[in-house]
Amino acid sequence: MELTVYLAGQIHDDWRETIKQEAAKRDLPIEFVGPQTVHERSDSIGEDILGEQPGKLFRDDAASSINNFRTQVLLQKSDAVIALFGENYKQWNTAMDASAAIQLRKPLILIRPESLIHPLKELSNQANVTVETYDQAIDVLSYIYE
Amino acid sequence: MELTVYLAGQIHDDWRETIKQEAAKRDLPIEFVGPQTVHERSDSIGEDILGEQPGKLFRDDAASSINNFRTQVLLQKSDAVIALFGENYKQWNTAMDASAAIQLRKPLILIRPESLIHPLKELSNQANVTVETYDQAIDVLSYIYE
Amino acid sequence: MELTVYLAGQIHDDWRETIKQEAAKRDLPIEFVGPQTVHERSDSIGEDILGEQPGKLFRDDAASSINNFRTQVLLQKSDAVIALFGENYKQWNTAMDASAAIQLRKPLILIRPESLIHPLKELSNQANVTVETYDQAIDVLSYIYE
Amino acid sequence: MELTVYLAGQIHDDWRETIKQEAAKRDLPIEFVGPQTVHERSDSIGEDILGEQPGKLFRDDAASSINNFRTQVLLQKSDAVIALFGENYKQWNTAMDASAAIQLRKPLILIRPESLIHPLKELSNQANVTVETYDQAIDVLSYIYE
Amino acid sequence: MELTVYLAGQIHDDWRETIKQEAAKRDLPIEFVGPQTVHERSDSIGEDILGEQPGKLFRDDAASSINNFRTQVLLQKSDAVIALFGENYKQWNTAMDASAAIQLRKPLILIRPESLIHPLKELSNQANVTVETYDQAIDVLSYIYE
Amino acid sequence: MELTVYLAGQIHDDWRETIKQEAAKRDLPIEFVGPQTVHERSDSIGEDILGEQPGKLFRDDAASSINNFRTQVLLQKSDAVIALFGENYKQWNTAMDASAAIQLRKPLILIRPESLIHPLKELSNQANVTVETYDQAIDVLSYIYE
Amino acid sequence: MELTVYLAGQIHDDWRETIKQEAAKRDLPIEFVGPQTVHERSDSIGEDILGEQPGKLFRDDAASSINNFRTQVLLQKSDAVIALFGENYKQWNTAMDASAAIQLRKPLILIRPESLIHPLKELSNQANVTVETYDQAIDVLSYIYE
Amino acid sequence: MELTVYLAGQIHDDWRETIKQEAAKRDLPIEFVGPQTVHERSDSIGEDILGEQPGKLFRDDAASSINNFRTQVLLQKSDAVIALFGENYKQWNTAMDASAAIQLRKPLILIRPESLIHPLKELSNQANVTVETYDQAIDVLSYIYE
Repeated sequence: MELTVYLAGQIHDDWRETIKQEAAKRDLPIEFVGPQTVHERSDSIGEDILGEQPGKLFRDDAASSINNFRTQVLLQKSDAVIALFGENYKQWNTAMDASAAIQLRKPLILIRPESLIHPLKELSNQANVTVETYDQAIDVLSYIYE
Repeated sequence: MELTVYLAGQIHDDWRETIKQEAAKRDLPIEFVGPQTVHERSDSIGEDILGEQPGKLFRDDAASSINNFRTQVLLQKSDAVIALFGENYKQWNTAMDASAAIQLRKPLILIRPESLIHPLKELSNQANVTVETYDQAIDVLSYIYE
Repeated sequence: MELTVYLAGQIHDDWRETIKQEAAKRDLPIEFVGPQTVHERSDSIGEDILGEQPGKLFRDDAASSINNFRTQVLLQKSDAVIALFGENYKQWNTAMDASAAIQLRKPLILIRPESLIHPLKELSNQANVTVETYDQAIDVLSYIYE
Repeated sequence: MELTVYLAGQIHDDWRETIKQEAAKRDLPIEFVGPQTVHERSDSIGEDILGEQPGKLFRDDAASSINNFRTQVLLQKSDAVIALFGENYKQWNTAMDASAAIQLRKPLILIRPESLIHPLKELSNQANVTVETYDQAIDVLSYIYE
Repeated sequence: MELTVYLAGQIHDDWRETIKQEAAKRDLPIEFVGPQTVHERSDSIGEDILGEQPGKLFRDDAASSINNFRTQVLLQKSDAVIALFGENYKQWNTAMDASAAIQLRKPLILIRPESLIHPLKELSNQANVTVETYDQAIDVLSYIYE
Repeated sequence: MELTVYLAGQIHDDWRETIKQEAAKRDLPIEFVGPQTVHERSDSIGEDILGEQPGKLFRDDAASSINNFRTQVLLQKSDAVIALFGENYKQWNTAMDASAAIQLRKPLILIRPESLIHPLKELSNQANVTVETYDQAIDVLSYIYE
Repeated sequence: MELTVYLAGQIHDDWRETIKQEAAKRDLPIEFVGPQTVHERSDSIGEDILGEQPGKLFRDDAASSINNFRTQVLLQKSDAVIALFGENYKQWNTAMDASAAIQLRKPLILIRPESLIHPLKELSNQANVTVETYDQAIDVLSYIYE
Repeated sequence: MELTVYLAGQIHDDWRETIKQEAAKRDLPIEFVGPQTVHERSDSIGEDILGEQPGKLFRDDAASSINNFRTQVLLQKSDAVIALFGENYKQWNTAMDASAAIQLRKPLILIRPESLIHPLKELSNQANVTVETYDQAIDVLSYIYE
C-alpha cells in the first residue's frame, strides 16, 4: 500500500531530506510532500507572483496566501502528517498544520525535543504519537508495513 | 440572536475580563467561554484529579488531556472564536485552537501585535479577520448586531 | 417551530423590511438575519475598524473580511436562505451566499426577475425554489407552517 | 503527484487552452477539466437530450440541469479550482462554482481584472489566492511542484 | 429532553393525528412535524404560488420543489424520523425521506404491514426499527423516556 | 478521466447490459457497477450464506443485509448514479439508493417513463437530471467527455 | 452553559445515580442521559414491542434495534460522553458507544479500574481523559465550569 | 474493481492468513490490511520506539498510540471492514474498530461464534452482516463480484 505523508515544520535546514533518505533506505513506499523549503522563496512568493505589495504586512499576506494554497492541496492528498517542532522560531504555522491534520482526521506524528514538552503539551496530547527523533518518526511509519 | 464566543489564548493576564466588560458595556448578547485561566490550576489539573504522575512529561500530558476535554466541549458549543497572540510565551495551543476553529468552520478573529505579523502570516491569512486590539475584536463582534 | 432565515442580496433598498413586515403580518415565527444593509458602512467597515488601508484593493479586502465574518456566523445559524437577485449590480456575493447555502444543505429560495432567467439558470436549477416576488417567497416560508 | 484542476468561468473564448498550453510547457502533471465550452451546445444541451421544452425558462432549466450534472461530477474529482471572471457577462455560475469550491474545501485561485476588485471583494477574500493573469494562476499551480 | 420527530408517509388519511394523540396521552415531550397533509394543496402548491405551469410535468415539478423545501427544513430540525408505508400508492417520496434520514444519521422507525415485508426488505434492513402498528412506533419513542 | 457509475434499479431484465453496450459503443471510459442482477440469487443470498432462516421475514432480512453491504461498498466507490424506475414492481430500494446518492452528493440521473411523472415528482425534483430513455442517460454521461 | 452528557456502560448497578447525585451536589447544570437501566426490560424490549421472536438470536436482535435507536437519539443530543468499564461482563456495547463518541467528536471520559489498563489501552488512548473513579469523572466535568 | 478490506480482531492466531488464502483461491482482487499481528511486538512497540516507560500504564499507552496510528491510517484507506470476535480475550479494540467503521460509513462484516450472540447484540445489529465463519465472510465479499 502506497502512502503520502505531509512533512510540516520549519524550513531552515534539510530535515525533510533526512526523513526521505531514511525512508528510502528502508524501502518504504511513501511519497513525502511538504511546503516550499527555500526560505527566501517562501517569503517572497507573494511578490514574485503578484508584484510589489504596499508594505510588509501585505507582502507577508500575499506570500502566505500562496503557501496556504500549496499546503491545503498537499495536506488533503496526504494519508498522514509528521509535524516537527524545534527550539528556534515561532513555528505557529507548524502548529496550524498539525491542528488542521487532527481536525481533518489525518493521523499525526509530532517530533519535538524534550525541552518543548511543556509548551507543546496540549498539541502533543491530541497527536497520535509524539517522538523526539527523525528515526523514531520513521519507525512509526515503518510499523504500518510490518 | 444570542451567540457563544470562545476566547483562545494565553492565561497570564485578565484580557478575557476586558473583552467581557466591553461587550457588556455595548449590551451584546454574547456568552464568552474559554480555557481555565488560573495558570497553576491549568498546569496541575492532571495531578489534581488523577494523582501524582511519574515525571513532568506525564504530569503535563495528564493536565493537557483535561484541558483539551474542556476546550473541545466549549469550542464545539461556540459560534465564533477569538484567538489572542501576545509577544510572550510559545502559545502553540492558541495556534492549535485557532486552526481547529478554521477546520470546524467556526468564524475566527485573530488579535496580534504588529510585531508578530511575520510569524503569524499563514494563520492570519486563514482567519476571517485579524486585528491588533481588544476593542477592534469587539467592534467586529458588535458589527454582527448592527 | 421557530426558524431563522438568512436574507442574502443587494443592500441598496429596503427589501428586507418588506419581507419582515409581510412575515409579521402572517404571524410567522421566523427571525430574519442578513448582511449589513447600510451601504457605506458595509464598504467602509474595514477601515472603520482596522484604520486606513493602502489603496482601494486593501480597503475592499479589509471590509469584505468583516462582512464575510458576519455572514458566516449568521448563515450557519440559519435554517433556510432567501437570495434576491435584481437587475442592477454584479451581485456576486449574493451568488456566493446562495451557493454556500446549497453546499451547507441550507434550503434555498431564489428571487429573481424574469429578465434574469438565462444568466441565473445554473443557480436556479440548484436552488430548492425559484420565485419572482417577495410575496411568493413568503408564501413558500409560510407553507412550512400550514 | 498528479493533480486535477477544474477551470470555472466563461466559455466565450479559449482561455482554457491558454492555461493548458502554458501548464504543458512547464511540464506540470495536471489534468484540467471544466464545463462544456461550445456555447450553443451548453445552451441547447437540455433540448438536445430531452427534446423541445415549453418556453425559454424550461429550455434553460433543462440545459442547466445537465450542465450542473457535469460540473458536480468533475468538481468533486478535482484537487483545486481556478475561477476566471472577466469584464463581460453576469458570470453567476462562475461565482456559484467558486463558492462551491470554498465550501467543499477545494483550494481556489480567482483570476479577475483590476476593474472588478470591488464587486468581487467578498469572493476574493474567501479564495485562497486572487491573481490578474493566466500566467500568475499557472505560477501558483506550478509553485506546488517546486 | 424535548425531541422533534418527522412523520414521513402518505397524506391520504389522518394517521399523523393518531400518532400525536397517542403521544400526548402518554405525555411525551415530542413535537411532531411532517409534510403538507391536504392532498390537493400538496399537488397544487406549485401553481398556487408560481402560477400556471405548461403541463402536468411542470405543474408536478413546481409543487415538488416547494414540498421538498418544506421537508428539507423540517427533516433537518428533527431528532428522529417515522416513515409509514401502506398498501396503496407508490410512496416513493416516503422511501426518499426514509433513506435521507438514514444518510443524515436521523434514527428511523419504519411502519409497514406484513404484506410489504418483501418489497421493503432493503429499506427495513437499514432502518433502526421496523414495526407494524402506530402503537408500536409510539412504544419505541416512549422507550427513550423510560 | 475514468469514472465509475452505479446502476440502481430493478433486476428483472438486462437493461444494465444495454447501458454498458451503448457506453462501450461510444468509447466512454466508464466502469458500471450495480446490484446482483440474478433475481433468485438476490432473494436467496441470505440463506445461501447464513443458512435457513425462521420464516420469510428473516429470510428477506438476511438477504437484504448482504445486498445492502454490496450496494454500500459500490455506491461509495461511484462518481455518479443512474436510477431506473419502470412501471412494474414497488422499486423502493431504487428510491432508497437514489435518495442515498443525493445525500452522499453523488450526481444522479433518473430514468422513468412518462406515466410515473406524478408519483416520482419529489425524487425527480431532487435528481440532477430526469430522462425517459437509456439513450438519454448515456447522452448525459457522454456530455461529461465532450 | 447547560450541557447534556451521555452515560454509557453496564446497567447492573445504579452507578448513574451516583454520578447524578454528585453532579447535583456540585450544582452542575448538566442533564445526564443514557440507556435503559432496567436489565430485563433492556433484554425484552424487542419482544415487548414487536411480539415473540423465533429464538434467542432474533429476540436479541429485536431488543438491540430498539436499544440502538434510543442510544443514537440521545448520543447525538449529547455534548460529551462518560463510558464506564467494570470488571464484569463483556461490555462490548460500552466500547461501541465510546468509539462512536470519538468518531462523532463527542469529548469522551473513560472510567475503568486499574485492572483493565491492558485490554482497554487502545480505547483509553483515544479517549480524552481516562479516570478510575466516579468522583474523578465528575471532577473533569466540573472543571468545565471553573 | 479493486478493494481494500481491514481485518479487525485478535492477533493470537493466524486467522487473517486463512482469510487471505481463501480470497486468493477465489481470485478476489482484494488487498487485506490489519493491525500488527505479532503479539509481543504489538505490546512492546511503544517502548521499542520511544524507550522505557515508567510502568505498565505508560508502556501500554505508548504502544497503543502507535497501534492506533497504524489502524487509523489503514482503516481510512479501506473500503470495508471485517471484525472477528472469538471466545477469548476482552477484544475491546475490536469493538472500537468495528464501531469506528460504522461511524465512518465503512461497510462492516462481523464474525462471531453463536455463543457470543447476546453480548454482541447491539454491535451486530449495527453491522451490515453478521456471520459465524471465515468462509461466510469471504462469501459476502465475493458476492460483490458476482
